[in-house]
Amino acid sequence: VRRSREDLASLHEQHPGIQPVLAIVQLVEELLRLNGDPGVHGVFLHLPPSSLSSRVLNSIQPEKDVDGRSDVNVGRLVCGGLTAGFTPPAASAVVEFLARHDTCLEGKTVLMIGWEGPLGVALQCLMQKNGMLVLNSQWSSANLQNQADVAVLVGDAHRGLPSSIPAFVSADIYVVSNQNVVRSSSLWVRQQQYLPWKLRTLKLQPLSPVPSDIEISRSQTPKAIDQLAQEIGLLPEELEAYGRTKAKVRLSLLDRLKEQPDGKYVLVAGITPTPLGEGKSTVTIGLVQALSAHLKLNSVACLRQPSQGPTFGVKGGAAGGGYAQVIPMEEFNLHLTGDIHAITAANNLVAAAIDARILHESTQSDKALYNRLVPSVNGMRRFSPIQLARLHRLGISKSDPGALTPEEAKTFVRLDLDPEKVTWQRVIDTNDRFLRKITVGQANTEKGHSRQTQFDIAVASEIMAILALSDGLADMKQRLGRMVVGSSRSGQPVTADDLGVTGALAVLMKDAIKPTLMQTLEGTPVFVHAGPFANIAHGNSSVLADKLALKLVGEDGYVVTEAGFGADIGMEKFFNIKCRASGLKPNVVVLVATVRALKMHGGGPNVSAGAPLPKEYIMENLKLVADGCSNLKKQIQIAHLFGVPVVVALNVFQTDTQAEIDLVCRIAEKTGATAAVPCHHWSRGGRGSVDLAHAVKEAARQKNNFQFLYDLQMPIHEKIRTIAQKVYGAEDIDLSPEAQAKIEYYTQQGYNTLPICMAKTHLSLSHMPEKKGVPTGFVLPIRDVRASIGAGFIYPLVGSMSTMPGLPTRPCFYDIDLDPVTEEITGLF
Amino acid sequence: VRRSREDLASLHEQHPGIQPVLAIVQLVEELLRLNGDPGVHGVFLHLPPSSLSSRVLNSIQPEKDVDGRSDVNVGRLVCGGLTAGFTPPAASAVVEFLARHDTCLEGKTVLMIGWEGPLGVALQCLMQKNGMLVLNSQWSSANLQNQADVAVLVGDAHRGLPSSIPAFVSADIYVVSNQNVVRSSSLWVRQQQYLPWKLRTLKLQPLSPVPSDIEISRSQTPKAIDQLAQEIGLLPEELEAYGRTKAKVRLSLLDRLKEQPDGKYVLVAGITPTPLGEGKSTVTIGLVQALSAHLKLNSVACLRQPSQGPTFGVKGGAAGGGYAQVIPMEEFNLHLTGDIHAITAANNLVAAAIDARILHESTQSDKALYNRLVPSVNGMRRFSPIQLARLHRLGISKSDPGALTPEEAKTFVRLDLDPEKVTWQRVIDTNDRFLRKITVGQANTEKGHSRQTQFDIAVASEIMAILALSDGLADMKQRLGRMVVGSSRSGQPVTADDLGVTGALAVLMKDAIKPTLMQTLEGTPVFVHAGPFANIAHGNSSVLADKLALKLVGEDGYVVTEAGFGADIGMEKFFNIKCRASGLKPNVVVLVATVRALKMHGGGPNVSAGAPLPKEYIMENLKLVADGCSNLKKQIQIAHLFGVPVVVALNVFQTDTQAEIDLVCRIAEKTGATAAVPCHHWSRGGRGSVDLAHAVKEAARQKNNFQFLYDLQMPIHEKIRTIAQKVYGAEDIDLSPEAQAKIEYYTQQGYNTLPICMAKTHLSLSHMPEKKGVPTGFVLPIRDVRASIGAGFIYPLVGSMSTMPGLPTRPCFYDIDLDPVTEEITGLF
Repeated sequence: VRRSREDLASLHEQHPGIQPVLAIVQLVEELLRLNGDPGVHGVFLHLPPSSLSSRVLNSIQPEKDVDGRSDVNVGRLVCGGLTAGFTPPAASAVVEFLARHDTCLEGKTVLMIGWEGPLGVALQCLMQKNGMLVLNSQWSSANLQNQADVAVLVGDAHRGLPSSIPAFVSADIYVVSNQNVVRSSSLWVRQQQYLPWKLRTLKLQPLSPVPSDIEISRSQTPKAIDQLAQEIGLLPEELEAYGRTKAKVRLSLLDRLKEQPDGKYVLVAGITPTPLGEGKSTVTIGLVQALSAHLKLNSVACLRQPSQGPTFGVKGGAAGGGYAQVIPMEEFNLHLTGDIHAITAANNLVAAAIDARILHESTQSDKALYNRLVPSVNGMRRFSPIQLARLHRLGISKSDPGALTPEEAKTFVRLDLDPEKVTWQRVIDTNDRFLRKITVGQANTEKGHSRQTQFDIAVASEIMAILALSDGLADMKQRLGRMVVGSSRSGQPVTADDLGVTGALAVLMKDAIKPTLMQTLEGTPVFVHAGPFANIAHGNSSVLADKLALKLVGEDGYVVTEAGFGADIGMEKFFNIKCRASGLKPNVVVLVATVRALKMHGGGPNVSAGAPLPKEYIMENLKLVADGCSNLKKQIQIAHLFGVPVVVALNVFQTDTQAEIDLVCRIAEKTGATAAVPCHHWSRGGRGSVDLAHAVKEAARQKNNFQFLYDLQMPIHEKIRTIAQKVYGAEDIDLSPEAQAKIEYYTQQGYNTLPICMAKTHLSLSHMPEKKGVPTGFVLPIRDVRASIGAGFIYPLVGSMSTMPGLPTRPCFYDIDLDPVTEEITGLF
Repeated sequence: VRRSREDLASLHEQHPGIQPVLAIVQLVEELLRLNGDPGVHGVFLHLPPSSLSSRVLNSIQPEKDVDGRSDVNVGRLVCGGLTAGFTPPAASAVVEFLARHDTCLEGKTVLMIGWEGPLGVALQCLMQKNGMLVLNSQWSSANLQNQADVAVLVGDAHRGLPSSIPAFVSADIYVVSNQNVVRSSSLWVRQQQYLPWKLRTLKLQPLSPVPSDIEISRSQTPKAIDQLAQEIGLLPEELEAYGRTKAKVRLSLLDRLKEQPDGKYVLVAGITPTPLGEGKSTVTIGLVQALSAHLKLNSVACLRQPSQGPTFGVKGGAAGGGYAQVIPMEEFNLHLTGDIHAITAANNLVAAAIDARILHESTQSDKALYNRLVPSVNGMRRFSPIQLARLHRLGISKSDPGALTPEEAKTFVRLDLDPEKVTWQRVIDTNDRFLRKITVGQANTEKGHSRQTQFDIAVASEIMAILALSDGLADMKQRLGRMVVGSSRSGQPVTADDLGVTGALAVLMKDAIKPTLMQTLEGTPVFVHAGPFANIAHGNSSVLADKLALKLVGEDGYVVTEAGFGADIGMEKFFNIKCRASGLKPNVVVLVATVRALKMHGGGPNVSAGAPLPKEYIMENLKLVADGCSNLKKQIQIAHLFGVPVVVALNVFQTDTQAEIDLVCRIAEKTGATAAVPCHHWSRGGRGSVDLAHAVKEAARQKNNFQFLYDLQMPIHEKIRTIAQKVYGAEDIDLSPEAQAKIEYYTQQGYNTLPICMAKTHLSLSHMPEKKGVPTGFVLPIRDVRASIGAGFIYPLVGSMSTMPGLPTRPCFYDIDLDPVTEEITGLF
């Protein structure tokens, strides 16, 4: 017995004056009566959505077969509301329904999700009878991977779905359930597509004079991070909160939005840095505050994660400053979501593996080593997959541990690392100058195998550079395995894969690969991810954060990412290394300058910490400004080498005069900058950068002829020379014999097609830090050449690079404190 | 014009046959009419809760003054639903209402929360007129701190309240708002009190043979951690999620539940460990699975966080095993929520500060040092608070930097650390044997100040012991400041406070102090927090996790916490050190034993990794079992020294025979154990430990005469002798001259009233690891005595303790891998 929609219509007719609210009361009564009637097996409901309440739906016993029907077409996905219950006829109706919507279901692969219930089982049987292949529903991400033509969600199965659902991108989806579940399922399916932003910005009321950074940061209450995530169209399952103000974003977002066009890609770079500071980070943050909060254009800033160690050395955070900050700034500057700690753990596991291996090889026979490396477990000997990979690299195509000849076994077990040629260093995220040169292995247990080595600051680890350049887990794992840690006595490179440690490194780094979402003072989104050194590495935030952000902002949105040091270093590496790795094309370069810094480039006096600023920097001095603009002009020209339009952002200080500001802007525009705009974000927040935002928007519309500076196929020394001459303005390069030998070695090893990552001082366009402005007539000396094979670049050393900062006599930790009651931090910047 | 409740009553009367659902329709119509009537300023509603819907409440324009009144008495908190609106008369009514409920409000301090709106302002004015002191409502945790007699929440202010609200514990709370907000506010106020658990457990379907730990872990889908938190009565604002399966719990919970009686406190300890393993962790987890999932008694397991480094050395996780595990086990064993990383950062900041300070002191004059340590900033010189504290300790009561005599300045700036007497070591969470003895400071920049030192594994840091023993942020900060890092050339201890680093350490540790919530395989709660070494430290999880758990489980619940090593070490320290620090009294000791381990104590042969197990451990051998029970008897007797009842948990292996099992249980009960129970949690989960759970429940009802073993006022050597004789069964102790000298030094420094933390091998009751069973007739040699002043104990060294594990020839990382598509980890245990 089934009550048709006519029955219900007559119910309405019997109570003509009664509104739906009243009808529901009677409907529930009727349903309760039907529940008790053993002759009734099912009910057909046809009701307007307004009258479907939980009271109605809850009143139906699960044993009853409830049928509500409403087809919802969401884009190219078809959802059908269908019979839910446990009877075979119901399942049959489902198959009929599917056939009606897709006439050629036969032979198709159907992914059943949530089939464990009786309906699911019935459905599965029927579908198989109808010639469809039904996948095992113990689905994991693996069998969701583009295997299904059709996906069927039974009941409210979508609630339990993992975030990674590539199958749904290509498959048609059917939802099989009762009507209200169909509605929520349809909603869910719709959410698999791009969601427009509904950003609620935070109001700023800038004070004058501008308070300290931590005071400003603390005076603003950040939004809950899951709220921000929702506002910018992230799904709850794409978010992994770390406390209330930080969250990691899962890479599955890239799958969900893979057909979404990218937004505009804006790089913030600077003139050659001076001790006076330029403010690239504040410009970056001020710009997204202006774009998102004032122009109402979607935008995301992508920033580097700062090293924690220096936070306790000399003052200066990396979260921006004034009214252009990432908040809470203490969270930004301290542990964040643990990525640098993960890098430290991974880096030092490699280091421990190297020394332990040298020790074990030196104290054991080939046979003993082989027996330990390929032990008999329960009478079975087996190579692990990573050992098979090493055998493959060695050209030994055997998989039976018993089959290796003694010579092959020897080749396999002996990495034969030359202790003098270990290039891998330990790292620590502390300013610990006493670790700059150390001797390890002096305990008796290490049997005299001591050697001199060093600790670097954690962000100098090659693993940090890898994190920044990887475009996914698989890519990161491959890069980790390729890392060269030293060479054997016979001169062969030894890799992390040879040490057998690749999988463990990937495990340690599995969360670090997800970018961290935070927010600006005005509540707009920021990604913080990776922070490789800008000299021995490429100094840019991660490829993945940029990619996620470009999808999230949508076609009309903006992603503003920052490069370390001056444009000659950070921007050059951004283009030639990062963009090459990512395949992304930048639309605009924002070049940051200050009147003060330009004055120093124009010949202004040196400054020293603590001493009052010389008057040249406080009083108007158009001559110094005009002379210093040579550096700005050169950096604009460097950007134009790559075919990208430039907007100059002049970060205004209170002491700058209008004439000085006008002069800079005039010179910049004359040099070919699309625009040159004074910015006041530090004192006014996003409102102070609205002009810059407009200029960037305009520049992003321009035609773009982005090109790399050099071809990877060029010989290593030619690539170095190209950068030296075209970017730095050198006459030529001068390779030391050591550098020459290394280039030959790397070429012979096949590393010659990697891009170049110059390790040069950031304080001058030349190799001489004291040469400001635009030095000319110099020959760039290349002292040595090194390689980060995992990260994927060759780095020539121009001078010596410090990779471990120290603590001054009075480190800033003297001022840092935590109130144990309020939990407020004081003295941090 | 106001409609009284009589009006509404008559509304009901006019529609006698109509149910409330219908009345609402008319009520809404009436409200809409009143909204449009400019003569009506307010409405008085009196409705049964069932008829209050959002439709009704939304239909009222905000300009109208809506009055719903229902006094809700929730314990000692009184909530009044009152007029909300913006008119002064409304505010007046609030004051009247407050006066009615508390006749002596005059002169009281009233905390207004959410007063920014017009009603709030009006209220504030009126209250001040009525002689009440109204606190500034820019409330922070600080002014909520026990300052208010009365708290008034205006509107839905409770939604924005921080989790730390101590004021509400002592103040009466009034909620001023319209009725539906009053209801949600009342609910909120009620939630400030203890919430009964609504635990939804996860079903286990144990397989035979038992699969690998990671397979079992992965086959169970953990509940979302916020769901588990809600089930066990945590408020959302008390939780800080770290991804989806881990969350930190805020210490504000202790304030909220401070009047809640504690649950029962159960310690899991073991017989003297053997290489065969006893399974204390699996017993702990199995026991809570049994209590919570099968006996339906609230219970929480409190576990130590394992060190990450060893995870990549030799196999063996710390998340339990078989069907008694914490899940996801890989999250448990890897970074967790970053606590050990924070400890590493804090520890190494101290180390860097020590060496940098030695360098700076050795290269600068007193004057230069003083000028740098107390610099002139904008023409002002000032001591930082931590410098003032040092001056105070030095007996210099001056606060003007200009007022110090040269001699005082010298005393102030020169810590004069003796490089030979630095006791502070660097730490790293990696098994890096080459760091066991190193020379640091060999770079030119360190000007010849090289010295020999070492790295320990991170969990060996004193900061880990401090984390485990602290009972709050303030306590932790004090302990951090008290840490002695070495001594001056004149023999004075130098502390972290002297280095000026205390505040920075507290900042680095501010999140680590919050315990991490996870779950067992059966979905029951687990706290993971702190994991100090069990020899050079006390080897117990944190005081804070235990305290939080004891409140959360409620009076009838159980907290099961674990002590490292055998009962002679872990349990003794749990009682004498941890319970002394916490003030908590244990109710029951669960003593874990296995037939195999007892056989070894009875004289069974040695075992070696990889080799097949000798037949003694596989075949029945009652003689060995009976002999080995000597160790079990001794450990029971040790527990009885402290006056706590003992339940023996016999962790059953497949090869154990019934006769062997019966024999152990008989001996244990004869020795005075309250019960002795075979357990099958490894193969069957909580169901396999139901008998143990019943026995523990029974034992917890017994009278308890808990007492410490020694008085703190006893001389140091007497305390050591007491432990050696009463616990280890030694004849006496033998102090080396070095130990004797250290005892004299510590006594002279006033450290003689600290408890003792013996650093002894865990493999024997004696100091000789090879002596199994119950050794007698030995004299315990005390090689040296050291002190962890911050943690608060003296640790005598009995033999040498390794504080840095190494990597074997084939570390287990060879088997560890990450599938980049499914993100699944393989090979981890």
